[in-house]
Amino acid sequence: MLVVMQEGASEVQTEAVIKRLVDMGFTVHRSTGVRHTVLGGVGPLDDFDPATLEVLEGVKECHRIVSPYKLASRHFRPGGTIIQIGRVTIGDSHVVSMAGPCSIENEEQIDRSAEIVAQGGGQVIRGGAFKPRSSPYSFQGLGEEGLRMMRKAADRHGLLVVSEVMDHLQIPVLEEYADILQVGARNMQNFNLLRELGKARKPVLLKRGIAATIEELLLSAEYIMSGGNYEVILCERGIRTFETSTRNTMDIAAVPVLKRLTHLPVVADPSHGTGKRDYVLPMARAAVAAGADGLLVEVHPDPDRAWSDGAQTLTPQQFCDLMGQVRAVAGAVGRTA
Amino acid sequence: MLVVMQEGASEVQTEAVIKRLVDMGFTVHRSTGVRHTVLGGVGPLDDFDPATLEVLEGVKECHRIVSPYKLASRHFRPGGTIIQIGRVTIGDSHVVSMAGPCSIENEEQIDRSAEIVAQGGGQVIRGGAFKPRSSPYSFQGLGEEGLRMMRKAADRHGLLVVSEVMDHLQIPVLEEYADILQVGARNMQNFNLLRELGKARKPVLLKRGIAATIEELLLSAEYIMSGGNYEVILCERGIRTFETSTRNTMDIAAVPVLKRLTHLPVVADPSHGTGKRDYVLPMARAAVAAGADGLLVEVHPDPDRAWSDGAQTLTPQQFCDLMGQVRAVAGAVGRTA
Amino acid sequence: MLVVMQEGASEVQTEAVIKRLVDMGFTVHRSTGVRHTVLGGVGPLDDFDPATLEVLEGVKECHRIVSPYKLASRHFRPGGTIIQIGRVTIGDSHVVSMAGPCSIENEEQIDRSAEIVAQGGGQVIRGGAFKPRSSPYSFQGLGEEGLRMMRKAADRHGLLVVSEVMDHLQIPVLEEYADILQVGARNMQNFNLLRELGKARKPVLLKRGIAATIEELLLSAEYIMSGGNYEVILCERGIRTFETSTRNTMDIAAVPVLKRLTHLPVVADPSHGTGKRDYVLPMARAAVAAGADGLLVEVHPDPDRAWSDGAQTLTPQQFCDLMGQVRAVAGAVGRTA
Amino acid sequence: MLVVMQEGASEVQTEAVIKRLVDMGFTVHRSTGVRHTVLGGVGPLDDFDPATLEVLEGVKECHRIVSPYKLASRHFRPGGTIIQIGRVTIGDSHVVSMAGPCSIENEEQIDRSAEIVAQGGGQVIRGGAFKPRSSPYSFQGLGEEGLRMMRKAADRHGLLVVSEVMDHLQIPVLEEYADILQVGARNMQNFNLLRELGKARKPVLLKRGIAATIEELLLSAEYIMSGGNYEVILCERGIRTFETSTRNTMDIAAVPVLKRLTHLPVVADPSHGTGKRDYVLPMARAAVAAGADGLLVEVHPDPDRAWSDGAQTLTPQQFCDLMGQVRAVAGAVGRTA
Repeated sequence: MLVVMQEGASEVQTEAVIKRLVDMGFTVHRSTGVRHTVLGGVGPLDDFDPATLEVLEGVKECHRIVSPYKLASRHFRPGGTIIQIGRVTIGDSHVVSMAGPCSIENEEQIDRSAEIVAQGGGQVIRGGAFKPRSSPYSFQGLGEEGLRMMRKAADRHGLLVVSEVMDHLQIPVLEEYADILQVGARNMQNFNLLRELGKARKPVLLKRGIAATIEELLLSAEYIMSGGNYEVILCERGIRTFETSTRNTMDIAAVPVLKRLTHLPVVADPSHGTGKRDYVLPMARAAVAAGADGLLVEVHPDPDRAWSDGAQTLTPQQFCDLMGQVRAVAGAVGRTA
Repeated sequence: MLVVMQEGASEVQTEAVIKRLVDMGFTVHRSTGVRHTVLGGVGPLDDFDPATLEVLEGVKECHRIVSPYKLASRHFRPGGTIIQIGRVTIGDSHVVSMAGPCSIENEEQIDRSAEIVAQGGGQVIRGGAFKPRSSPYSFQGLGEEGLRMMRKAADRHGLLVVSEVMDHLQIPVLEEYADILQVGARNMQNFNLLRELGKARKPVLLKRGIAATIEELLLSAEYIMSGGNYEVILCERGIRTFETSTRNTMDIAAVPVLKRLTHLPVVADPSHGTGKRDYVLPMARAAVAAGADGLLVEVHPDPDRAWSDGAQTLTPQQFCDLMGQVRAVAGAVGRTA
Repeated sequence: MLVVMQEGASEVQTEAVIKRLVDMGFTVHRSTGVRHTVLGGVGPLDDFDPATLEVLEGVKECHRIVSPYKLASRHFRPGGTIIQIGRVTIGDSHVVSMAGPCSIENEEQIDRSAEIVAQGGGQVIRGGAFKPRSSPYSFQGLGEEGLRMMRKAADRHGLLVVSEVMDHLQIPVLEEYADILQVGARNMQNFNLLRELGKARKPVLLKRGIAATIEELLLSAEYIMSGGNYEVILCERGIRTFETSTRNTMDIAAVPVLKRLTHLPVVADPSHGTGKRDYVLPMARAAVAAGADGLLVEVHPDPDRAWSDGAQTLTPQQFCDLMGQVRAVAGAVGRTA
Repeated sequence: MLVVMQEGASEVQTEAVIKRLVDMGFTVHRSTGVRHTVLGGVGPLDDFDPATLEVLEGVKECHRIVSPYKLASRHFRPGGTIIQIGRVTIGDSHVVSMAGPCSIENEEQIDRSAEIVAQGGGQVIRGGAFKPRSSPYSFQGLGEEGLRMMRKAADRHGLLVVSEVMDHLQIPVLEEYADILQVGARNMQNFNLLRELGKARKPVLLKRGIAATIEELLLSAEYIMSGGNYEVILCERGIRTFETSTRNTMDIAAVPVLKRLTHLPVVADPSHGTGKRDYVLPMARAAVAAGADGLLVEVHPDPDRAWSDGAQTLTPQQFCDLMGQVRAVAGAVGRTA
């Protein structure tokens, strides 16, 4: 904790701040400069909110110098985390491809989707059974019945399953049918859900919220990890900005930033990142070129008739093209896909 | 639904779009212009995502012309909603004041807080028993025990109680102790929670998410209302922008915009809106001047020692000043406070 | 300058950073903690970019502790700046009202506008002669001829004149006809223009850029002041965010933040801040309630036929109502208007 | 122009809107639906502001259906624009590399920089002689003397020159020494400058403003083109968002969006886009993978001692690595670099 006193702060003010720091358990080191006095505090509270000190009389600003997350930091596991699920590894030199429809609609649709994913060379099928929809009047998902269909389709085509969990009560059913439990962007700070996922026996795919900073994403990963589940995969899927020509603004730089700050695998979702089918392919290439460990994309046998998110869903042919091009870019950066 | 075809779109493309609209149940009206053909579709699907049509060949853009919310729209109840809880009314000419600490800490703290709120002229005490905290290592709230303490303090000082519900499983306990159930910004799109609140027997205070548009806030209100609970109070509490001199950027214009779009009462939270104690007072005045029906502010007997959010929490004296000044501004705009 | 070394940074890395700081003219103070070593540097370079040190090996982060502006800081003139122009004072307890059309269109329109402003109790007429338009095909302003018309109208109705200068070559003609030279949001970082305005003999109204932080606004004021012109009025007029129900998001909190950081007068422009006529009145009240020293609003004898910005321009009747209500709110906060 | 009337708008209101459209020169087509009446207007004013109609009584919303730019639209030149300068082509299958220091500092530094760029396989040297600096106390550039030095260095190493023009008065001197005239992000809407560049005899590199939408960038290009200069190169260099781990958020999706909307070449600047040296390489790869026609990067013989922007400037070795990796990625997407 670094506290910078205002120019002209009185000795009484400085002493009062030192006393507060000591009361909070900090060891304080003072250095008096020409214009500013700076107090350095070493203490037990890493999650301390600097704003608490900034309101004290005579304080100019306050900086936290220890990251508020520990288990998620690169420092904790410098070599990086590789997650192994069956034959699939996430976080090594192979770029993993997870694909499938936005929603599971029926047996035939999900089976055909699994076939497309497998033929294209993907390893994981995605599909929503519990759907967070911004309108109460929209289709809300098939629930457990949908998961059963997807598991069957995945097994027939040799794929893993990833699917979204919207509520901690759904964890058991997801654990039964899926290999990876996905936390959607809107639930990135649903702390009850995160805490329960810390006890889950399956890896978690954690999507970045549309207004979440990279630090907040890592704090949410820390929630899960602090419960004992260290298998967290982070996902960049676009943030909300003023630009409206894409549904979100995909923060591709989050990929190298995260690779530096954390040991966890990082994947990218260009479908939600752009919201438009035609931009998915170039953004998938960009994410892999920037160092992503995997992709999450939406594909559907007939996307123009998909029950949700059709605009950002690839046709089978587009998915096949994407996989070919991603493979070429992966090769150019020394990886496989 | 309005679909604008691209300049030079072929007849085949236009016909294909018309066919799609008809398949979806729309009645289509075509008007062919010098440069663009425009298709107007009237149909049963108000929550239809325009992007679904924008990916079709030859389509330039697509606009939804019916608001995706109905029960929440001003049109539904032009005179406005007034919520009556005991002797307190929310949404009429009196500006309601809800105040109290960020977290309930102990019996004495919450009783003293209730006393401060009542003496200042507030009607409702706020205080968190279940705390959403971005770090897993932070204080998470006293739970039901805290709610019991706050109810007792409120009753002793003649106040109503508002407190946050983080999870639908907590609804029953909140209903037992609180008069108003608060949905925090991070849960504004926790649709499972919203759906269950639609069945609750108490009014809901719904906070705007930090990256939520006004339309999304109204859609979340619609979720609750579509379940049968029409007593929803909306709360502006700051959005996330590039500016860092305040914790959030308080979108004061959301107050008059909401008053125009919806019949629901609108309150403002300048504590979370600014994150700094010194800015709470001017922003409380501003919110009331802009037409807010109430305020939600943080006050604590000794904010520098509060367990959470101390930086944005008023001292008893500051709260008293705030109430006096808010009363003056309310008078200037023809209301009481 | 505070440099925080990474946990585990080597002695060689720390020494290298110290050497760099000393080479740059800093006096360095080192404090070694349990987990982090912190270096405090006192030196002559207040505009130093912290990022320059953050790329050095072993450095975790770097904070500048001296504000990069001096003349604009509250510290420089704690009592606040009052600008006197003829009988009008800006920055004292009277809230100044500047109003008029977006563009000067013709002799009759500007004279009628001046009459409306004067009758409503305004002190300054605004009107654009040189118009920054985002499309090259839009009306670009009447130029000097327009300024001549506005000066004449202002004199006839006892008003001062404020008008926008888009280019440093226009300064002389603006100085001839106007009392206050306005810098538009798009030119807030047109440094050549700012530098030349430092030599102007008239006060400058500096509008905040749509993506400018408060610190950047103050640095732009510093540009003008460092040239010798200390009469700068700052103007909050909305920033760009994800919300689209208003043209910009008016950052009302910028008013109290600026009043704390700087001694310069602060005015607000609810016309550009909202972009819609119906929201101008509540936001004008809010700005004054938050402590603004003045308002800048658009009014036109027949706004639906205005050549530009008609949507956000008040009718004469709305302006008259606004002035009455602003006067009431000003009274409630101990000022006049 | 499409005008959607409110549900329940009266016939009088609808007639009044039709009259206004006709007065403005629009031919109006009316279609009356179950809930909404929609008016389609075809007229001569493509830059018409829809907000002007949205304030009329009974109007719900208004959409412009013709793009406000023409010369810059893909439709104008479907095959795309290729700019030829000497032996260098911009906009064809070769990815052009422009690199050099932020500021020209002295003869030796710029010559050594040119050597590094040429050896790495770059085609254009960049370097600032007129520097827009947010603090008035920062180094402001060597001016014409710097340009002379850079021209000499470029000629010695067989490179073209790109440099920033801050003011229209600087156009002649830039035209004398540079091959491409750069407009910086802060000047993207300096319309006087854009208009004069429309008469320049050299290509213009137009950088996107930090808060500019893609449509606004294209309107600024239209300004230059409407003056007769069709050789405009667009540059994505990061936008301002809430995320602070990078200096700006690089909107990589702007590359494919622009390639679809316009025929002009699109380059990317990962140095300003990220602000940190370590992220330049992955983001350069990402931009090329997404389809960029070129890169603009900062490199310096000794970046830790650069006079400006050192944190985001590559070392000679890093630049050499970047060029190698960019060449590999370009190959993977069917291009050369």
